[in-house]
Amino acid sequence: MPKEIPKNSVGIVEDKIQHFSQALTLVCGRELPEYDIAYETYGTLNATATNAVLICHALSGDHHAAGYHSMKDKKPGWWENCIGPNKPIDTNKFFVVCSNTLGHCKGSTGPASINPSTGKFYGPDFPIVTVKDWVNSQVRLSHALGIQQWAAIIGGSLGGMQVLQWAIDYPDYLKHAVIIAAAPKLSAQNIAFNEVARQAILSDPDFYEGHYYQHGVVPKRGLMLARMLGHITYLSDDSMRSKFGRELRQGKINYSYEVEFQVESYLRYQGQSFVDRFDANSYLLMTKALDYFDPASDYQDNLATALAKASADFLLISFTSDWRFSPERSQEILQALIANNQNVSYLAVEATQGHDAFLMPLPQYIKAFTHYMQRIAQQIGD
Amino acid sequence: MPKEIPKNSVGIVEDKIQHFSQALTLVCGRELPEYDIAYETYGTLNATATNAVLICHALSGDHHAAGYHSMKDKKPGWWENCIGPNKPIDTNKFFVVCSNTLGHCKGSTGPASINPSTGKFYGPDFPIVTVKDWVNSQVRLSHALGIQQWAAIIGGSLGGMQVLQWAIDYPDYLKHAVIIAAAPKLSAQNIAFNEVARQAILSDPDFYEGHYYQHGVVPKRGLMLARMLGHITYLSDDSMRSKFGRELRQGKINYSYEVEFQVESYLRYQGQSFVDRFDANSYLLMTKALDYFDPASDYQDNLATALAKASADFLLISFTSDWRFSPERSQEILQALIANNQNVSYLAVEATQGHDAFLMPLPQYIKAFTHYMQRIAQQIGD
Repeated sequence: MPKEIPKNSVGIVEDKIQHFSQALTLVCGRELPEYDIAYETYGTLNATATNAVLICHALSGDHHAAGYHSMKDKKPGWWENCIGPNKPIDTNKFFVVCSNTLGHCKGSTGPASINPSTGKFYGPDFPIVTVKDWVNSQVRLSHALGIQQWAAIIGGSLGGMQVLQWAIDYPDYLKHAVIIAAAPKLSAQNIAFNEVARQAILSDPDFYEGHYYQHGVVPKRGLMLARMLGHITYLSDDSMRSKFGRELRQGKINYSYEVEFQVESYLRYQGQSFVDRFDANSYLLMTKALDYFDPASDYQDNLATALAKASADFLLISFTSDWRFSPERSQEILQALIANNQNVSYLAVEATQGHDAFLMPLPQYIKAFTHYMQRIAQQIGD
Repeated sequence: MPKEIPKNSVGIVEDKIQHFSQALTLVCGRELPEYDIAYETYGTLNATATNAVLICHALSGDHHAAGYHSMKDKKPGWWENCIGPNKPIDTNKFFVVCSNTLGHCKGSTGPASINPSTGKFYGPDFPIVTVKDWVNSQVRLSHALGIQQWAAIIGGSLGGMQVLQWAIDYPDYLKHAVIIAAAPKLSAQNIAFNEVARQAILSDPDFYEGHYYQHGVVPKRGLMLARMLGHITYLSDDSMRSKFGRELRQGKINYSYEVEFQVESYLRYQGQSFVDRFDANSYLLMTKALDYFDPASDYQDNLATALAKASADFLLISFTSDWRFSPERSQEILQALIANNQNVSYLAVEATQGHDAFLMPLPQYIKAFTHYMQRIAQQIGD
């Protein structure tokens, strides 16, 4: 619990839900007859609705990007380092919206929601959703909020992929695309890690082919393993070395299967706490959305062709020690934009923290990000 | 099944078992009153017993390093590329011994063996074994085979760690130490991957706290996940990209949890086939031996001090794309040996195949390895 809310925080916030009663046809061919999207907002929309910024969240994130839901919260939203008064995404200047993804477990319609046509949990019958579907649902949210064009759409990791899809599919809807620690598609290794995570969940006897809600259980073991594995890929070898090294939990080796090294303790804790806050079916869906993401595939596998009609200015940011989506992956997007003679800035941040660096207050990153966003704010005027 | 045995193979081989009735005190403080070690040999020991070479195997390997057990075998031993007539480890010149590790499931005493003092499976009561214990047991095997000094001890990965321990603990027992794709200790990231693999097995409901033998089941799901995860770390991002890319199994996306991408199919196959040939308790033990390996810890964490009394000549080999035990890890050993002014050759092989490169017939690697071994053979004479 924060004793008091820090002054540079957006403070106490509440999440909102927007209901959509018009059916949404999904890329997989199925249709959602109606659905909710959860979101939060920070700052104030100006009279001309030109200062709105959309934040897209990553795999294990949600729409609670900044501030606190109550004074009892132990932690603020996941991007508190970047959203707030005088922060890179300055809530004194921007009206910030963070939208939850369809299929998620925190307010948006997803597998843990009741299917109105059956009165039962969707469970595994919830359709497979893609990044393109998320963007389509966010377009509708934009309309509902009275926003015709976003001053910027911003996201890291899977969030950055949504930004890229926005820039390709809805060029007129955004003036700036900020894509951080992302990639234009997953590599075989990325898919392989997702597949192990999925198999951990799918093979958990408490998964019941996705119908675990009815059995009063959750596939804890599988979801925990998935999260532990994910966590390894978020950190760099170096950051794990400096964080944990070979430090022993009890100062001596016990020759047992109990926790010996601090890193084991950390991973188990991360895995266990994730189980309490995430739904396994939603996690499966999110990993599939990652795997399927490949916007160039609709354009003869040519990313430059895919981006040809994009009219946003781009800011790409990568982190040197990120091996989940390495700088080379951001540079694939960069090269496509350069080939098209499009307006792009690229920041390669020196960072030891791995993929997670995009969440951290690294001076070089914060400074450049702030500067870029200030220029956007100046373009908007008052 | 090979239609005929290739001429440069050691041909049909049989595995042997050496029983030891003298108790072995282990690093963990416990004692094995008696035990078996399985091994294979290729080539002929010369009259002076000076042409013997010991091969130490890696995590998922065993003592069947070369040749075929029968004409029905689909595949030869795991290091067929390097052991045989006119191969780097030339069986026309060397008497080659490959020893199985204590705790393994292929002939050596391990968790799946019967505990003579209870008449029941050891299961989880089998003591935790370390690399040091393996080396101690191999010393006894050396005596049993009439070998006072090995012309070389050779191993890749966890096998290379055994070689390093040999060189430190028994300097007079080996003239050459060939350490391939290894590290002087695991990093936090290495331990983290092992921990996820272990948790997959330990949390499988069919594990029964290690007593699954009595229940007539095996923790298939857990062992499969462990192996899938291991496999990702054996391959480089590049090799996965060139092997699988984003190739689809059925040529189109099906939007389901069935296999979509070839890499998923490959991993599931690797996982499933491992379950048929490996024991989960043994796998747990092997990962613990990896975690605990840290020979410098007995010498104020100074590897050079640990190696000060080593008298072997060293050959170190690393592979550029190996991210499990990267070239930098081999160079830690190199630097310690250089600091001691010891005799060391180091080969950094350019290879895209990741950690698995040490098993492959890469021309630069095979040529240098062959040359080094030929010099050893010349030193022995006839």
